[in-house]
Amino acid sequence: MTVKPAGFEPALPPLLFEPDQTNPYFAKAVELRNIFAVDAVERDQQGGRPTEQVRLLKESGLVNLLIPKEFGGEGQPYSTALRIVRELAKADGSLGHLFGYHFSPIQNALTSANEERSAAILRQSAKGRWFWGNTTNSFSKSLFGKRIEGGVILNGYRPFASGSHVADYLMVAWEDEETNARSFAYIPANRPGITIADDWDGIGQRQTGSGRVFYKDVTIKDAEILPERPKDPISLLAPQQQQSVLLNVFIGSAQGALIAARDYTITKSRPWIYSGVERHADDPWIKRQYGELWTKVQAATTLADRAANAIDGAFAKGQALTADERGAAAIAVASANVLAGKVALEVTSEIFEVMGARSAVRPYGFDRFWRNVRIHTLHNPAEYKTRNVGSWFLTGNYPEPGVFQ
Amino acid sequence: MTVKPAGFEPALPPLLFEPDQTNPYFAKAVELRNIFAVDAVERDQQGGRPTEQVRLLKESGLVNLLIPKEFGGEGQPYSTALRIVRELAKADGSLGHLFGYHFSPIQNALTSANEERSAAILRQSAKGRWFWGNTTNSFSKSLFGKRIEGGVILNGYRPFASGSHVADYLMVAWEDEETNARSFAYIPANRPGITIADDWDGIGQRQTGSGRVFYKDVTIKDAEILPERPKDPISLLAPQQQQSVLLNVFIGSAQGALIAARDYTITKSRPWIYSGVERHADDPWIKRQYGELWTKVQAATTLADRAANAIDGAFAKGQALTADERGAAAIAVASANVLAGKVALEVTSEIFEVMGARSAVRPYGFDRFWRNVRIHTLHNPAEYKTRNVGSWFLTGNYPEPGVFQ
Amino acid sequence: MTVKPAGFEPALPPLLFEPDQTNPYFAKAVELRNIFAVDAVERDQQGGRPTEQVRLLKESGLVNLLIPKEFGGEGQPYSTALRIVRELAKADGSLGHLFGYHFSPIQNALTSANEERSAAILRQSAKGRWFWGNTTNSFSKSLFGKRIEGGVILNGYRPFASGSHVADYLMVAWEDEETNARSFAYIPANRPGITIADDWDGIGQRQTGSGRVFYKDVTIKDAEILPERPKDPISLLAPQQQQSVLLNVFIGSAQGALIAARDYTITKSRPWIYSGVERHADDPWIKRQYGELWTKVQAATTLADRAANAIDGAFAKGQALTADERGAAAIAVASANVLAGKVALEVTSEIFEVMGARSAVRPYGFDRFWRNVRIHTLHNPAEYKTRNVGSWFLTGNYPEPGVFQ
Amino acid sequence: MTVKPAGFEPALPPLLFEPDQTNPYFAKAVELRNIFAVDAVERDQQGGRPTEQVRLLKESGLVNLLIPKEFGGEGQPYSTALRIVRELAKADGSLGHLFGYHFSPIQNALTSANEERSAAILRQSAKGRWFWGNTTNSFSKSLFGKRIEGGVILNGYRPFASGSHVADYLMVAWEDEETNARSFAYIPANRPGITIADDWDGIGQRQTGSGRVFYKDVTIKDAEILPERPKDPISLLAPQQQQSVLLNVFIGSAQGALIAARDYTITKSRPWIYSGVERHADDPWIKRQYGELWTKVQAATTLADRAANAIDGAFAKGQALTADERGAAAIAVASANVLAGKVALEVTSEIFEVMGARSAVRPYGFDRFWRNVRIHTLHNPAEYKTRNVGSWFLTGNYPEPGVFQ
Repeated sequence: MTVKPAGFEPALPPLLFEPDQTNPYFAKAVELRNIFAVDAVERDQQGGRPTEQVRLLKESGLVNLLIPKEFGGEGQPYSTALRIVRELAKADGSLGHLFGYHFSPIQNALTSANEERSAAILRQSAKGRWFWGNTTNSFSKSLFGKRIEGGVILNGYRPFASGSHVADYLMVAWEDEETNARSFAYIPANRPGITIADDWDGIGQRQTGSGRVFYKDVTIKDAEILPERPKDPISLLAPQQQQSVLLNVFIGSAQGALIAARDYTITKSRPWIYSGVERHADDPWIKRQYGELWTKVQAATTLADRAANAIDGAFAKGQALTADERGAAAIAVASANVLAGKVALEVTSEIFEVMGARSAVRPYGFDRFWRNVRIHTLHNPAEYKTRNVGSWFLTGNYPEPGVFQ
Repeated sequence: MTVKPAGFEPALPPLLFEPDQTNPYFAKAVELRNIFAVDAVERDQQGGRPTEQVRLLKESGLVNLLIPKEFGGEGQPYSTALRIVRELAKADGSLGHLFGYHFSPIQNALTSANEERSAAILRQSAKGRWFWGNTTNSFSKSLFGKRIEGGVILNGYRPFASGSHVADYLMVAWEDEETNARSFAYIPANRPGITIADDWDGIGQRQTGSGRVFYKDVTIKDAEILPERPKDPISLLAPQQQQSVLLNVFIGSAQGALIAARDYTITKSRPWIYSGVERHADDPWIKRQYGELWTKVQAATTLADRAANAIDGAFAKGQALTADERGAAAIAVASANVLAGKVALEVTSEIFEVMGARSAVRPYGFDRFWRNVRIHTLHNPAEYKTRNVGSWFLTGNYPEPGVFQ
Repeated sequence: MTVKPAGFEPALPPLLFEPDQTNPYFAKAVELRNIFAVDAVERDQQGGRPTEQVRLLKESGLVNLLIPKEFGGEGQPYSTALRIVRELAKADGSLGHLFGYHFSPIQNALTSANEERSAAILRQSAKGRWFWGNTTNSFSKSLFGKRIEGGVILNGYRPFASGSHVADYLMVAWEDEETNARSFAYIPANRPGITIADDWDGIGQRQTGSGRVFYKDVTIKDAEILPERPKDPISLLAPQQQQSVLLNVFIGSAQGALIAARDYTITKSRPWIYSGVERHADDPWIKRQYGELWTKVQAATTLADRAANAIDGAFAKGQALTADERGAAAIAVASANVLAGKVALEVTSEIFEVMGARSAVRPYGFDRFWRNVRIHTLHNPAEYKTRNVGSWFLTGNYPEPGVFQ
Repeated sequence: MTVKPAGFEPALPPLLFEPDQTNPYFAKAVELRNIFAVDAVERDQQGGRPTEQVRLLKESGLVNLLIPKEFGGEGQPYSTALRIVRELAKADGSLGHLFGYHFSPIQNALTSANEERSAAILRQSAKGRWFWGNTTNSFSKSLFGKRIEGGVILNGYRPFASGSHVADYLMVAWEDEETNARSFAYIPANRPGITIADDWDGIGQRQTGSGRVFYKDVTIKDAEILPERPKDPISLLAPQQQQSVLLNVFIGSAQGALIAARDYTITKSRPWIYSGVERHADDPWIKRQYGELWTKVQAATTLADRAANAIDGAFAKGQALTADERGAAAIAVASANVLAGKVALEVTSEIFEVMGARSAVRPYGFDRFWRNVRIHTLHNPAEYKTRNVGSWFLTGNYPEPGVFQ
């Protein structure tokens, strides 16, 4: 005799954090992840452009994941994209990042998909399986527009232009040289006058192309300039999208590092000479440390899942989303992001301890996980996200929407 | 235009971790928690018996929560009981513990409810709103049975007999004085020859009555002696039940401590003299530390929720539960327990830092949270649960079922 | 053939952190510590006044430790007093605190010992083996003086008046009821009109008597009122003295807790049932955790020794002490204080894990170490001391002298 | 009036952890460190051989630091070498390591300097300013000796042969192909048949040349084979030397990273957009985190200084060193090593947080500190050193001398 709960949900995630592959998008993502894994270490050392990998992502159709079916896309929720970001990041943090940020302009267009301009872009993007990059970094004032008849001429550059080196289309932002007003447009990446500097040389996330894009007399037509975004809650979720992508790169990196370490420990690690055991995995130390690693990855993953659900919920509300509901999503994402970053830093460093000295050579490339997480967690400080969470808990007030919160 | 996920789940738990009070059991639990909170500090200092509180729990009907409706109970899943354990522990860790452990004999009977003896006990328990205690601690060999015609005579004592001091009925275990075989029975707490020593003097969990129960020529009839438990997976979940109760006491203690600290910070704390702010809650330090505290409590809570779901799922399987499914539940519970204990220890200590020096006086009783968690986390070592998790992750092998795993 | 360094200093502190007992002051301190240890648990539960213990401290002559020999004292450096604070705190944090703070008025008088008033007080103090208390807490404005012919009449109270309940002499501070100017005096504790409220009820440091002292028409003669303290660096070291006493209470508590745990583990702890070892001390877990505990206590102790040396050096400079030298001492003390507090909190909580569940009962009183450290570390926030250290490291600027820095 | 302590020792280490440059060896080390710093980032990326840097070390005479003056050396204690290891590692972990390990064969010869063979080697080493490498790794059995008339012929290879790529002379170890007995010799690095594979490709410590050395029919003359080392305590200190070199590489890396971060924060970091301050260094967060970083580096440094003193003391005892004195030195070194490694890992990762996102690019090379520490801390597991410390604390028994303890 037992009491029946609503449904039996598995007690544990799969041993290796594999997604449910009865979902065809996840199955495809796993397939690509395994392909990307083959030369991930080599590409980490080279930096540069993951051209072939982006080609495969386009070919797979996953680039259209969030575009509604009526526009020719797959009509999946944002959380599906995040789950794929995580999956790709298990092998390759750069591709996780690029895939996740690819959806920023798309999500931007989705929020205003009742406008014909947005709808048209979405249809073309789906049809052409466009891959999107951005040149919109808001920290620098280095790209200026001069008004001309029927449009604007851009001159200058944008730093941190992740994805522009492999993009079909770009979202671009500039300041008006007279008024300093900020405008946005969607433009083809091959528009004359645009030069990708290919000068990204981070300690990690080495194929994200997060360097500079130069604009020399680039013309933007009036019809391409986006109308000013409304300030309603649903239109202010860009920081939460970004933080969600980042945190899933952290989670994927932590999971990927832990799985790689497990493989190494089982197949290559030797027991310590004073251990008295024949298999390294039988050392109480190794059991304990893997237990700690798994538990913290699991905790961070669970919070990440909640945050993904929160952001799905917020998008689902659409124009009905209230400021408080946006705030609640912001807190969920911020706290999940901070925990994911902290755990990922710890895990990607500690794996070496349970693998042993011989694992720390470049041909294995295990250090790329830490380098990827270390640089990526600097995007915006954990300190401030944490203060926002604390302030909300103390006062009930949500953070003021802004570029990073 | 937005993509609709299956349903909009709130992005955040309620600010103060309140359960959904449209569930009448939770509403009742909150009501009782608030009553218990009134004199929780005083009762912590006194120790002894929470007689009136147990009376209210019985009166409320919550003691019958897990007994199936056909036997006169409420037919709720185990997770509902755990959620109420957590809620009570926000104010009073002892009552959370007593309420949770009360269900151990009941769950034991449920697993064999197709036997008339078990069914009868459940019916009587429901009807009489019995509160259960246990005198079954397996570490000590100090209570022995001598076979007589038609039964057994018990002499000796049991330590760590939590709940026996407020119980209507007891589950008792003893060793046969000749064969050392261990047997169990359900007996009324007022059976002649039983003496509750009331000698519990822990640093925390002070009203759990976890002291000794003495047996002087106590008669157990043959009909009261339980048949030997089968060794199938569903019958081996007692360690997971115990760990689940414990971990929800940890979670409730952490949440309760954090809420209490928040109240104090908002209403009583003064800003530090060098802070330059007028309200303590505006100090960047205080925001950050509360943000960290909330985030870790939230992570531990989320893992605890998963573990509760896992144990519901395992019970739901009943006799069909496989060894691997039991193992998966064991890993989920063990990892949630370890994280909950760790977080609860940190939170119940750190709250003082964000409240300030004047908060650390006995009339407030804020230290009871740490004392409760500190003693309760010693029940079985986190080290070994963590090793089990790590060993499973490395090898796929679940821990061998045993008294503590 | 070896190269000779200047001298062979022992590689390690004594196993149990015992001081060098060829120093007669340390030998006496150890003797008293062992006496105080006998009923430390009982006195922790009672709170109140350690009258007999203070009598022994006076009888021992240790109360005159810092008074120069020419005034009838022992003429020892401040670090000797700190080392004894540490030693007493191994058994009893309250006595460590009382003994350390007893020297605050004495050190105050020492700094102006070229003035006859100070010299006279020091001579009398030495002769009478006075024990000093303080009623000078600077946070509250609750004790006011009214000027009369030849003196001042005090009315009101002081909170946090540690040591006043066992003192022969008090340092008292008040505000002038008209000008709000703050003045100080040394007065006998039995002066008419003074009432010790004995209302201290902290969660720890239970015999420090840190409650209120009431003043009802208490007369202070003009000759008793201290001249205004100069603002030269040597006269601004009170915060460093206080922080030094506190940090040595932390160190002593951590050491005392660790030694107590070691005794328990060796003599009482049982190996965990899944450990496969016969002695608890042979479990790799127990070895590792004790190794971690010892190492962090050792690190904190080493920094504490450096800080004690710094403060000795500062006092030795006397009027020649520069602002930068004072600043350097302040940084040394602040960083040692923060580390000592952090380590002591960890150690006094973790000891339970290596002792096991049965250790957490009140008759053993092991929780007093954590309670003592928890309350004592709240005196002034680690956050601000840490900021001062960081700011100095970044800019070279020392913290502005003030009540707490 | 103040009490005078024996001497006024500065309260704080110099702000940037600079050694006392009135010591000419330290002055020279600082000079070289500053030269090595110029292209340390570039050389980290290249790997390979620091030929010019080793030439400068030889030219400076520092390579003769530990050789007694009577043999033509500088006659300094071991701690001076360790302090210079630390200094070099501030800029370049590889050179710190190479310089420290260079002294292993020298110290080996010193211990038997009363034998003419050893004395001769020391004289020649001093005269020729030899730089020493080693090919003695004890984990692999891959280099075998075949006895011939008057000597041995070696064939095979040694891995982890740090320093052999820049060495004048090598210490070599092999196993006899028949008896498996292990023998040692000192030989010139250019002996025919020796090939340096230059195949080291670690994630850090990139110029240590810790790859393989191949031996093809290399002849060792009988006169070159060292007599078997005695097993007295003074002859069993090799593990402590190694751990001392490693731990000072950790300390130097942590200090170097922290100083580099400070420079960057002061000169380049921008305040966070929500910080409300004009200088990043004025953000309470930045102050606090630097304060924490400094304090832990300081604690680890202080323990490292104690350990260096312990090893000096042990060497000074020479043949009179007892097993317990060796044990005490072993505990001092092991605990200092573990703390130094832990702190260095934390500091070399956290520096990025206080510098900000733009600091994490390869041209700055700040990540080399973490990579150096991460790989170097894997040499032998902290877990086992910690267990040894704990076991000693519990039982008083020192670790059994062995290859790694």
